Amino acid sequence: MGGDHAPGSVIDGCAISYERHPSVRFLLFGDEAKIRAELARHPGLEAHVEIHHTPDAVPMDAKPAQAVRQGRKSSMAMAITSVKVKRAAAVVSAGSTGALMAMSLIQLRTFPGVSRPAIAAIWPTITGETLVLDVGANVESTIKQLVDFAVLGEAFAHAVMKRERPKVGLLNIGSEDLKGNDVVKAADTLLRAANLPIDYVGYVEGDDISGGEIDVVVTDGFSGNIALKTAEGTAKLVAHYLRSAMQSSLLSKIGAVLASGAFNILRKKMDPRSANGGVFLGLNGLVVKSHGGTDGLGYASALDLAIELADSDFNDDITHALSLVNEKVVVAEAELKAEKARKKDAAVQ
Amino acid sequence: MGGDHAPGSVIDGCAISYERHPSVRFLLFGDEAKIRAELARHPGLEAHVEIHHTPDAVPMDAKPAQAVRQGRKSSMAMAITSVKVKRAAAVVSAGSTGALMAMSLIQLRTFPGVSRPAIAAIWPTITGETLVLDVGANVESTIKQLVDFAVLGEAFAHAVMKRERPKVGLLNIGSEDLKGNDVVKAADTLLRAANLPIDYVGYVEGDDISGGEIDVVVTDGFSGNIALKTAEGTAKLVAHYLRSAMQSSLLSKIGAVLASGAFNILRKKMDPRSANGGVFLGLNGLVVKSHGGTDGLGYASALDLAIELADSDFNDDITHALSLVNEKVVVAEAELKAEKARKKDAAVQ
Repeated sequence: MGGDHAPGSVIDGCAISYERHPSVRFLLFGDEAKIRAELARHPGLEAHVEIHHTPDAVPMDAKPAQAVRQGRKSSMAMAITSVKVKRAAAVVSAGSTGALMAMSLIQLRTFPGVSRPAIAAIWPTITGETLVLDVGANVESTIKQLVDFAVLGEAFAHAVMKRERPKVGLLNIGSEDLKGNDVVKAADTLLRAANLPIDYVGYVEGDDISGGEIDVVVTDGFSGNIALKTAEGTAKLVAHYLRSAMQSSLLSKIGAVLASGAFNILRKKMDPRSANGGVFLGLNGLVVKSHGGTDGLGYASALDLAIELADSDFNDDITHALSLVNEKVVVAEAELKAEKARKKDAAVQ
Repeated sequence: MGGDHAPGSVIDGCAISYERHPSVRFLLFGDEAKIRAELARHPGLEAHVEIHHTPDAVPMDAKPAQAVRQGRKSSMAMAITSVKVKRAAAVVSAGSTGALMAMSLIQLRTFPGVSRPAIAAIWPTITGETLVLDVGANVESTIKQLVDFAVLGEAFAHAVMKRERPKVGLLNIGSEDLKGNDVVKAADTLLRAANLPIDYVGYVEGDDISGGEIDVVVTDGFSGNIALKTAEGTAKLVAHYLRSAMQSSLLSKIGAVLASGAFNILRKKMDPRSANGGVFLGLNGLVVKSHGGTDGLGYASALDLAIELADSDFNDDITHALSLVNEKVVVAEAELKAEKARKKDAAVQ
C-alpha cells in the first residue's frame, strides 16, 4: 500500500518482474478489494500471488515512532513479519523510509555487532556500478558504524555484484590533511589498523562515486543522501541542457531525429527507474525500499533486486565477514585508544 | 604560482580576462623570471601588469599551519597583503585551498560577528544560477555558522547575482521529521525565530540545487563539497553515456555530425572552466579560489568573477546585512535557549 501510486504500481511491478522471474511467488499485503481490482488488469498474475488482507496502512507522512506504535496490523508491519517468520525471502516497500526502517529494525533486529543498518544504493558508473552506503538511514554515523558499513558493503559487492575483491573507499573532501571531519578520520585509521580482510583503498571524493574505480563507497547517511539527490538533480539538468541544445537549429533538430536511437539508449541508461531500490543492510532479513513516486517499471526493478538478493549467498557472506571482522575491530579500537592515552600522558609529562 | 600549470595558466587567464575588462590592472606575485617568460607570449599584456617578485611559493600540498608559519614571504601571502593594504581590489589564487583560507583569515580577518568564512560556488541550474555555500572551507559547521552563511549568501545573491529578493534554503535530507541532523534542525529553528530580513524558504534537498527554484543553498563544508564533486562526476558520467550512445549506430553517428553545433553548445554549458571560482565569503577583502587544475580559460573565469565582485556593492551589502542580523540572531538564540530550559524544567516537575 506504500508509494504515491499504490497498489496499482505495485501490481504492475509484480507483473513485469514475474515475466523475468517466473518461479517467484508474491505475497501481497494490503486492502484486498483494491488489490483484486488491480490484479484484474493482469489475468496471468493472479495464480502467482497470495493476498493477505490488512485493513491498516502506514501513511506516507507517518513519523517512524508513530508508525511503530499504531501500525502493528498495517500492511507494512505484516509484510515484514512474513520475512521474520521466513514465509517470505524478502520484503519490498515503496512506503515511508523512516517507518520501514523503524519497523524492520524492531522486527528483524540487526546482525550481532551491527548497531544500525544502512541503506545501500547501486549507482551507475563509467565502467558499471558502484555501491554507496549509507544513503539516508542515519543522519549521523559513529566511527564503528562507518567501519560496519565498509564490511556490509564489501560483502554485498562480493555476493550480489560478483566482484572478486571489491575496492572499498571512504567518502571525504580532498586529500589535504586539514580536510575530513574527526569521525571520518578516525574511521580511516580504524579501517587501516584493524587489518580487515577487505581491500580498503582510503579516502575517495564525490566524483569518484561515478568514476568507476571504486566498488563500495562508504559514508554517513546525511552526506550519502545529499550526494544521491544531487546526482539525480545534475542528471536532470544535463538532460535539460541536451534537449534545449538539440532545439537550437534546424540542422541539430534533423540530427536529433537521425540519432533518436542513440537518445533512446541514453534515456534508458539515465532512467532512474532502472536503478530503483535501496537495500537495508545489516538486518536479519532482506528489506528493499522502492522510491515512493515510481511506477510499475521502477517497482519491478526493486523486486528484481530483492529476488537477486534472495538468490545470492549475501546473508551468509555478511555473517561470515562480520564474524571475522568484529573481533579485529574491537582489538584495533582498544589499541588506538591505548595509544592515544599514552600520547596524552607523554605530552603531559 | 599556485595551481598545476602556473604561472603559464595564470598569465593566459590574465590575457583572456584583459580582453573583456580592458581597464583592469593585474598585480602578479611570484618568480619574476618565470612570469616574464610567460608574458612574452602575450605582447599586449605587459603594459597592464605589475610584477612583484617573490622568491617563495606555497607548495600545493602544504598544510595550512605550515604555510602560515613558513610562507610569510610567499607569493600567496604577498598577494593577500596587497588586498589588505588596499593596493589590490581582490586576490585570485589557484594554490592550496587550505593555505589560502588560513592565510586570508590571518591577514584579512572576518567581518564582525562572523566566526568562520565560507567558500561559495556558483552552480548552474535549469533557470540560471544558484549559490551554494559552504563548499569546503569548514568540515563541520555550528548552528550560528549556518545562519551566517545564509546571511552572507543572501547578500552575495543580491549584490552580485542581481536577485531582487533571493530565496534561501537549508540543505537537508528529506522532509520527514526524523531526518536532518541536530545542527541543521537548530539552524532552521534559529533562521525562522530570528525573523531576519531574508526570504528563508526552509529545507531543500540535493536535487533542488540545480532545480532553479532556490537562489542560495546553505550547507556545511563537508556536505557542500561532496555535493559539488558528486555533481561534477555525474556530469562527466552523462557526457560519457552520450558519447558512447552517439557511436552506437551509423545513423546516430550521422545525426551527431549534423547536430555538432548543438553538442558544442552543450559542451560549453557543461565546461567546468566557465564556472571556475570559489568566493571566500565573510572576510574583510575579496578572495577568489580558482581550481588548481584549470587552464587559462578557467583562470580567466575566476578573474572575471573577482572583477565583478570588486565592481559590486557586495561588501557594503554584507556589512549592512550583518549589522541588521547579528543582534536579531543573538536575541533569538537566547530566547530559544531559555525556552528549552523552561521545557526541561516543566518536564522535571
